[in-house]
Amino acid sequence: MPLPLLNCDMGESFGNWKMGLDDEVMPYVDCANIACGFHASDPGIMRRTVALAVQHGVRVGAHPAYPDLQGFGRRSLACSPREVEDMMLYQIGALEGMCRAEGTRVAYVKPHGALYNDMARDPELLRGAMRAVLAYDPELPLLAMATADPAPMRALAEEMGVTLWFETFADRAYDPQGRLVSRREPGAVHHDREAIVAQAVTLARGEPLTANDGSLLHLPADTLCVHGDNAESVAAVRAIRDAFDGLARE
Amino acid sequence: MPLPLLNCDMGESFGNWKMGLDDEVMPYVDCANIACGFHASDPGIMRRTVALAVQHGVRVGAHPAYPDLQGFGRRSLACSPREVEDMMLYQIGALEGMCRAEGTRVAYVKPHGALYNDMARDPELLRGAMRAVLAYDPELPLLAMATADPAPMRALAEEMGVTLWFETFADRAYDPQGRLVSRREPGAVHHDREAIVAQAVTLARGEPLTANDGSLLHLPADTLCVHGDNAESVAAVRAIRDAFDGLARE
Amino acid sequence: MPLPLLNCDMGESFGNWKMGLDDEVMPYVDCANIACGFHASDPGIMRRTVALAVQHGVRVGAHPAYPDLQGFGRRSLACSPREVEDMMLYQIGALEGMCRAEGTRVAYVKPHGALYNDMARDPELLRGAMRAVLAYDPELPLLAMATADPAPMRALAEEMGVTLWFETFADRAYDPQGRLVSRREPGAVHHDREAIVAQAVTLARGEPLTANDGSLLHLPADTLCVHGDNAESVAAVRAIRDAFDGLARE
Amino acid sequence: MPLPLLNCDMGESFGNWKMGLDDEVMPYVDCANIACGFHASDPGIMRRTVALAVQHGVRVGAHPAYPDLQGFGRRSLACSPREVEDMMLYQIGALEGMCRAEGTRVAYVKPHGALYNDMARDPELLRGAMRAVLAYDPELPLLAMATADPAPMRALAEEMGVTLWFETFADRAYDPQGRLVSRREPGAVHHDREAIVAQAVTLARGEPLTANDGSLLHLPADTLCVHGDNAESVAAVRAIRDAFDGLARE
Repeated sequence: MPLPLLNCDMGESFGNWKMGLDDEVMPYVDCANIACGFHASDPGIMRRTVALAVQHGVRVGAHPAYPDLQGFGRRSLACSPREVEDMMLYQIGALEGMCRAEGTRVAYVKPHGALYNDMARDPELLRGAMRAVLAYDPELPLLAMATADPAPMRALAEEMGVTLWFETFADRAYDPQGRLVSRREPGAVHHDREAIVAQAVTLARGEPLTANDGSLLHLPADTLCVHGDNAESVAAVRAIRDAFDGLARE
Repeated sequence: MPLPLLNCDMGESFGNWKMGLDDEVMPYVDCANIACGFHASDPGIMRRTVALAVQHGVRVGAHPAYPDLQGFGRRSLACSPREVEDMMLYQIGALEGMCRAEGTRVAYVKPHGALYNDMARDPELLRGAMRAVLAYDPELPLLAMATADPAPMRALAEEMGVTLWFETFADRAYDPQGRLVSRREPGAVHHDREAIVAQAVTLARGEPLTANDGSLLHLPADTLCVHGDNAESVAAVRAIRDAFDGLARE
Repeated sequence: MPLPLLNCDMGESFGNWKMGLDDEVMPYVDCANIACGFHASDPGIMRRTVALAVQHGVRVGAHPAYPDLQGFGRRSLACSPREVEDMMLYQIGALEGMCRAEGTRVAYVKPHGALYNDMARDPELLRGAMRAVLAYDPELPLLAMATADPAPMRALAEEMGVTLWFETFADRAYDPQGRLVSRREPGAVHHDREAIVAQAVTLARGEPLTANDGSLLHLPADTLCVHGDNAESVAAVRAIRDAFDGLARE
Repeated sequence: MPLPLLNCDMGESFGNWKMGLDDEVMPYVDCANIACGFHASDPGIMRRTVALAVQHGVRVGAHPAYPDLQGFGRRSLACSPREVEDMMLYQIGALEGMCRAEGTRVAYVKPHGALYNDMARDPELLRGAMRAVLAYDPELPLLAMATADPAPMRALAEEMGVTLWFETFADRAYDPQGRLVSRREPGAVHHDREAIVAQAVTLARGEPLTANDGSLLHLPADTLCVHGDNAESVAAVRAIRDAFDGLARE
């Protein structure tokens, strides 16, 4: 069983505003989810972030979002499935323009924020997102939130002909259905680095997590979402990378 | 000598706002310059316009612009050559996303409005535009305004390795240097359909135009810009197409 | 009982894109709901529309919306009540800037599109909108959709200290609860001018409408929404105005 | 002679992106130039910044700009004087909306970035800006860059009926005409706190500066621009404030 790929949101600066420690975290990840100008980033930042990924041998992923810079793509916008499909094609293509200039190509697609969450609860939006990926390049994996029962989503992906990568989190508590516990609940976010690394290793080994009601939770983990927001989260990524290097030698 | 290709700005609607008779004019042109969302268009309109071009066997061109929806890309924005390069890569790629979904590809690049004009007077911006086209796909022609002395631009294009297509107008008067006479001057725009067709045929035959001072003006004419704004301009395009069909049979 | 004021959405052009027959419809309305740049309009169009309203002695209303030019403010955006409050303050103030330059002032507030509908179903968003109006100017009426049971909304308005104007439609069918029948249902929109005028007169007289299940429906009608989209809708506005002039003489 | 008012750009965050130490610097300034959403800020940030100014008894100024978030309003956009006038009315009004909610009002206007610089070199744009201020509220002062020969600008202001406040800088070198030395030149920016304070005091006393060619330069200094970008610049503001408190006691 391959180790989960470490993916991290990148290129989230915009114009004169800086966000994220892309330079510091890039050496430790496998996949850079690069904002495409709708929730963050601009053409110059996208290109520099792609160049940084290329320099570190990191795969470039499109990170498309609702058109909402002010809300950072975190506010649901009531779009039709076709609107979602078209806005994803636009953003994937725009990032590909940068990839061509830097000698790489878009390797996968991870919708951002509210779009990612809306896809997870509305199968029609998910189909729209899948049609975008298929129309763009049927080889591209689409990232989706892992759940305790991935069978329905797998069936839909098979029907549509899309490759899914299930995504998990090392720093978040889960409920028994495999949903992230809301940040408003106590214990929703792990701040202790050892707890984070332990959860990452459990997921990498294909072992069950303990959900917030004490039950055991099996989650598919093709990829693990990590963060480069600040020095603490970058240190956690390094620690996960070290642990994964250890697993690889086992 | 091949006939000049007829190119026309398309996909200039935005959201709920309609502009241009794309359906009416598409059957008579060779090349559709499709707005890429910066001065006009949005993902849905771009995709429908690409589909219309495919249906009529028309080449799809990227029509990138400064980011200025309110000003329709007609107001110069003081950008660096690198900013121009990156915004063009972004927009060409975004349109390519739509092309992939509709079974075609971007076939050439024609910058829009103020960006097009700024490129014509600032060699550094022109180099930026050329670098974008080269980085995206060195096979793509870049459209530029024809001038009475195309040698310097040809030399730059050769140095950079870019294919240039010189563009002319059938409905505009020229000064002796091959610049368009300002719309504020009397006689700057031909409204008479016969005069428009006559100028198109003269350019297609490689014969000189008469500039606004009475002198003869030779212009290279790889392509001719036509308009689909209203019924009158569409009728002029049909008339030019008929005349070119006649030339092709000579 | 005063006649319902005729209100009409105006200033919905944007940059080079035209929408609506503002010049034609302005002479026949009482209230111009002027877009504030978030779903339509721009500073130049806002100012010209305010000037047109002043010329015809028409009251200027702010028509604030979610920030969504591409979707024309018709797509719900998941905003907090505070975000709604602040975006309304911004847009009302921006329109007031234009009013000051044209010698008038903002006289009322009518939220637009998805924001208007979201307010009608979410009391917290309605409170946010009310706080904006109160903070800006407690004298300004806020328009809200009339319902068969206006008591709860009236109570909230009284608690908050806001003046409500209930809005009705002459060209739309209602269900027994006083909600507009969805445009997807047959008979949802009246296209016959006589039917439109008859419904306007019924509302103006304070008489009950017949809902789409045949029951009688009493609606409060401080104001009536009319449309200037095309020649047909302008003709309907003129016919309503003529009928109201007749009522005034009764 | 009154001391120059200390003015500082504020509210330059946008959505999730933070910029500037507004909380730290607000206690030491007289005037907060608050971004109005075109180059930075959004309705929520504007309102919080106005509230912070009110809390510290600081005057609120509108800081309108070209519509260019990505370029932070630092790229010239070729606008007509009327476009400048209307975009300023829009932005001043929008900020006033926030001021009404926080119990204050817009007290002056300082155009931002490229708009400020373009006004200084193009009298027609300056007239457009003046017309906006006059139409909005003829009592509002308009800030403009001080020059060695302020007579022409003063004459224009008198003709138009606008109050001008000339602005100077404590941390920048000047040429003999009273223009800021380009940042690309050595010595253009003073980094030494004592040099900054000394220049501020010289300006406050109405004494001449030494221009970069050694000549003496008299500049009118109704207001002095200070910065809250980082801890160092905030410390300089505190030092200037202390020095001015000393002058006030002299």
